[in-house]
Amino acid sequence: MNNSPVIGVIGTGQLGRMLALAGTPLGARFVFLEDAPTNDAKLLGESYALPQLNEFIAVCDVVTYESENTRIDLVEQIAQHKPVYPPRDALFTAQHRAREKTLFRSLGIQTAPFQVVNSLSELQEAVSNIGLPAVLKTTTEGYDGKGQALLKTTEDIAAAWQSIGNRELILEGFVTFKRELSIIAARSVQGDVHTYPLVENHHQEGILRTTIAPATTITAALNAQAQQMMAAIMNKLNYVGVMALELFDTANGLVANEMAPRVHNSGHWSQDGAHVCQFENHCRALLQLPLGDTNPKQDAAAMLNLIGELGHWQTVLTLPYAHLHLYAKAPRPARKLGHINLTANSHEQLQARLSEINEILKTG
Amino acid sequence: MNNSPVIGVIGTGQLGRMLALAGTPLGARFVFLEDAPTNDAKLLGESYALPQLNEFIAVCDVVTYESENTRIDLVEQIAQHKPVYPPRDALFTAQHRAREKTLFRSLGIQTAPFQVVNSLSELQEAVSNIGLPAVLKTTTEGYDGKGQALLKTTEDIAAAWQSIGNRELILEGFVTFKRELSIIAARSVQGDVHTYPLVENHHQEGILRTTIAPATTITAALNAQAQQMMAAIMNKLNYVGVMALELFDTANGLVANEMAPRVHNSGHWSQDGAHVCQFENHCRALLQLPLGDTNPKQDAAAMLNLIGELGHWQTVLTLPYAHLHLYAKAPRPARKLGHINLTANSHEQLQARLSEINEILKTG
Repeated sequence: MNNSPVIGVIGTGQLGRMLALAGTPLGARFVFLEDAPTNDAKLLGESYALPQLNEFIAVCDVVTYESENTRIDLVEQIAQHKPVYPPRDALFTAQHRAREKTLFRSLGIQTAPFQVVNSLSELQEAVSNIGLPAVLKTTTEGYDGKGQALLKTTEDIAAAWQSIGNRELILEGFVTFKRELSIIAARSVQGDVHTYPLVENHHQEGILRTTIAPATTITAALNAQAQQMMAAIMNKLNYVGVMALELFDTANGLVANEMAPRVHNSGHWSQDGAHVCQFENHCRALLQLPLGDTNPKQDAAAMLNLIGELGHWQTVLTLPYAHLHLYAKAPRPARKLGHINLTANSHEQLQARLSEINEILKTG
Repeated sequence: MNNSPVIGVIGTGQLGRMLALAGTPLGARFVFLEDAPTNDAKLLGESYALPQLNEFIAVCDVVTYESENTRIDLVEQIAQHKPVYPPRDALFTAQHRAREKTLFRSLGIQTAPFQVVNSLSELQEAVSNIGLPAVLKTTTEGYDGKGQALLKTTEDIAAAWQSIGNRELILEGFVTFKRELSIIAARSVQGDVHTYPLVENHHQEGILRTTIAPATTITAALNAQAQQMMAAIMNKLNYVGVMALELFDTANGLVANEMAPRVHNSGHWSQDGAHVCQFENHCRALLQLPLGDTNPKQDAAAMLNLIGELGHWQTVLTLPYAHLHLYAKAPRPARKLGHINLTANSHEQLQARLSEINEILKTG
């Protein structure tokens, strides 16, 4: 154990930070590759600039990444020397909405109808195939609602192409859903899959604001269906590590929206709400240690993102059921600065506690 | 929050490591001062050698330390520039067994009878005052049973002086106790005191092996007495941060053994067993944030030290109720390499789980 295994993380944001916090007690050491110039999250290990890539590779035993937008050529280059998890094919698939949906469909998983378009005329044709309303998105690089446009009428088509087009886009048929769910699982090198319960996500201006875990009124059948989806996707990709799948809960069952080949914001509740959190399980998978128990510790848990400003977070520390996780980032509109996890003995109590925290954040 | 507050830790061992893990989510950043040349614990922040003391001081907002053996002149020097918590007087008192016991007695807290001796003849005189059996200890620097000798008969006196003497020693009357307890509390700059429950400690070859939290069969009166002792000591010392007090549970009530002006091994259970752990509460005190809830989350918790060798720790990861904390240290006889925390719904279940873990560590 003196030679601690070294986990390299591509990226220097809050996900790498929380991976290091969870993986250090397992005896691992962390190093970071700065793949973007402007990240001020404080790090919990040595960090390497891109020109030092070879030194980074040399010091790592295994490498992972924070973002589905991680450069695929970088992952391929590193993978020639050291194992990279999640595997390159998972990243490649997740980086392109059409590729992703094609995989889902090949496994019998419902998706919205979709069509890739490369010009205004192709877009117009896709609209006549799929109908309106529909959502136009960039095929790659979108996150937190960026690079998206809602088409309600044919009037919107040209403006949307103007706004986010002049590149490859995907038109997705509008899915009428009751709510947005997600599911997170970890898969080991040996193929064990440990799945967290389905959770419910509430967004605000396109950014995840609150996760409720487990989601309310989920039937055993629905949970089983979601678990089967995860196992099917992960097995197909020979996946290693933690993956998230965003789902729409519709009158016709679960419809897959997108996957994230990484630890995911909708899994942050597990830090204080599950026996073993997503960050620790991701590290366990990387280190080839047994995966941990993904069950909730209490009947209900929630995660509340602190977006743009922190509010009166100090006062939240007086609440025994709340746990603060700050990212040491400078406030900036729409930026995720931290989150608060809370637990409760029922969903009713959870909602009351969420209201209490929201009120405290506002007024102190 | 972009300018994260910086906590400086004197020392680079597992306590600093766990302080950093607990304090980082509060938005703090950690730096370390290497006050000993041979420490291979991996760090979670920049570390400074002693000749760089001025740079260390400059970068810190507040400074704390890992050990009661921290050089008092170093603390005094740093305190001229930046706040150091726990305060210098607490460290000064804890560094000397007679000073410590004198403080306890001045606050009406029972201690063993004691006498400081500086020569063999003074030792012989002390034995005739206090009686045998008695324990001879160095007045300073002892820990984990080092620098101690048990005197059973007058035959043992000369050999004991030979072995650990030729320096200032303290002879302590033997205390007949039912068990060893300890109590840990955090105190804020404003004087709030939050106390963890009394816990029971089991040693093996002079080193803490297991802590049971809360201690079994503790009356409300005993708990209240221990809490009053802590408040009295902390208030007297104008204490800030976490402190531990080791106690003997005797037929005549609680007898104070010694205090530790720092986070303490007998409080490690709180990482997984209390709402807010001792490490986070120490950081909260340093950062002048509200102290957190010190209550247990479940009916019973335990901490099992991994001493000298790690055993089959990987298999322990399969147990949902167990949590691993490794220090990334090279195995060496009698060295604390990590610990395992566990929780249970009763002390009976806790004992069964402890046995299960001990068996797994041995046989895999």
